Amino acid sequence: MSTPPDAATIARLSLHDPAHFGIQHSQTLHRLALLQHWNIATDAKVLELGCGQGDCTTVLANAVGEGGKVVAVDPADLDYGAPYTLGQAQGHISQGPFGSRITWVQQPTLDYLSSLQPSSSSSPVFDATVLAHSLWYFASPSLILSTLSAIKQHSKRLHLAEWSLAATHPSAQPHVLASLTQAALECRKENSISNVRTVLGPKRLTELAVAAGWKLESETRVQAGEGLLDGRWEVSACLDSSFEEEVEEQVKDGRERAVVLALRDACEASLGGIEGGQKGVKTMDIWVANFV
Amino acid sequence: MSTPPDAATIARLSLHDPAHFGIQHSQTLHRLALLQHWNIATDAKVLELGCGQGDCTTVLANAVGEGGKVVAVDPADLDYGAPYTLGQAQGHISQGPFGSRITWVQQPTLDYLSSLQPSSSSSPVFDATVLAHSLWYFASPSLILSTLSAIKQHSKRLHLAEWSLAATHPSAQPHVLASLTQAALECRKENSISNVRTVLGPKRLTELAVAAGWKLESETRVQAGEGLLDGRWEVSACLDSSFEEEVEEQVKDGRERAVVLALRDACEASLGGIEGGQKGVKTMDIWVANFV
Repeated sequence: MSTPPDAATIARLSLHDPAHFGIQHSQTLHRLALLQHWNIATDAKVLELGCGQGDCTTVLANAVGEGGKVVAVDPADLDYGAPYTLGQAQGHISQGPFGSRITWVQQPTLDYLSSLQPSSSSSPVFDATVLAHSLWYFASPSLILSTLSAIKQHSKRLHLAEWSLAATHPSAQPHVLASLTQAALECRKENSISNVRTVLGPKRLTELAVAAGWKLESETRVQAGEGLLDGRWEVSACLDSSFEEEVEEQVKDGRERAVVLALRDACEASLGGIEGGQKGVKTMDIWVANFV
Repeated sequence: MSTPPDAATIARLSLHDPAHFGIQHSQTLHRLALLQHWNIATDAKVLELGCGQGDCTTVLANAVGEGGKVVAVDPADLDYGAPYTLGQAQGHISQGPFGSRITWVQQPTLDYLSSLQPSSSSSPVFDATVLAHSLWYFASPSLILSTLSAIKQHSKRLHLAEWSLAATHPSAQPHVLASLTQAALECRKENSISNVRTVLGPKRLTELAVAAGWKLESETRVQAGEGLLDGRWEVSACLDSSFEEEVEEQVKDGRERAVVLALRDACEASLGGIEGGQKGVKTMDIWVANFV
């Protein structure tokens, strides 16, 4: 039996800027930490929804081994994403050692799920379905509900990971505020293309999963690793001058606009106590849950 | 020259529950701390807008001395407020030693201002106008703008004090989140009767004052005294089950509702790191500013 590849080896399978390998490495380490709570079996057939550039897909492909399979679905255009597009990133992974274990699907999640053959509840197509940091990309809570309901027809288990809205370290509080600020703006747009569209905490996501027929088996909250820069990225997006301009454009009602701007200002104010200011911002905790 | 009354003496002029004198005392101490940044002169004629039960009014009446005058305006009904109504609280102060220095006016702020005789800019009616923790009670940013513009016609100086949306102590962050959560709900209501209606941080309030013709002379941020329980009160209101019911009733759109609930959940999550939980919540910093 060969030694399983370590985080650095898996991270190198993704298309990355070698000058900033640390960023890719931290993202892979983070997915490996999530995986510890999911218990994905060797040879399992796993559905991943919202795979994006495949940061979690490689980790899942590693976990299921040569006998397993990952179907990785993302509705985004293949030319979406920076510095590499989804098409470039996914193509690169396909050419690597895990390529044969992964099937990429570029399709709206619900369309993909409804294209599957109806399965008897005793033998669903997938052993497990994973949504790792993809729930906040959904357009609305009702779309999350429909999706979780559709998954119930085709998967034995459901594994979720999402930002928890909780910050164990006070320096991660700006990340919480930046997410809420973005959510308050994005809910005003007919079509959002932000990283942060529908912000729901663990309580609301669990309510939706239960309403979709799932039963919560276990949940936990993990602190973000030091190298994870998501907090800094979101705070930067929220404090960028273009954000304020967008608020002016998109939120016509003065009272509603005041709420979004107050959120933004609270995010900025929360940097006050942080050593290094914006550069000292940490990433908030992550909620990890298993449903059956 | 007699010794000026201390905080305890001034606090006792307000109608209070003797079993909880500490609450009244802390509120008076806080107003005295604000006053230090305003430089209200003896014998001055001061207009106070949003006087409520008079917690700041007694402090101002003390500052202007026997030769001064405070006109204290509040639009709320005289039977509004708990545990004592505005009418009871103001009536009690009027019967005390500062009674003759204070004129109470129960009238919408703009109505009162437009009832004043037009004054030449060289000799306005009031030496100073004070809004201490009353700006968040306004129905909208545009009403604040009209009010600040109207004040400019009748007052030499403008003194503002409002919650800053900044928390020097991490245990005050739940207060910030509770205020933002309430603001996100209240902006959906045609008529809000909450303590927190229009939440604006220092930057936005300064923008409004400048747009109204005022010039920022000085500003500072002060930390709330230990005894000030406003943070705890607002967090309690936000986490009460009635709040969630109100969100269900008032916010019909699922995406918008999700934002308010995410804010509420972030407020709850922020209690995690606080010793004593909800009881350990501190009150956020206060912004104090002078305009001419």
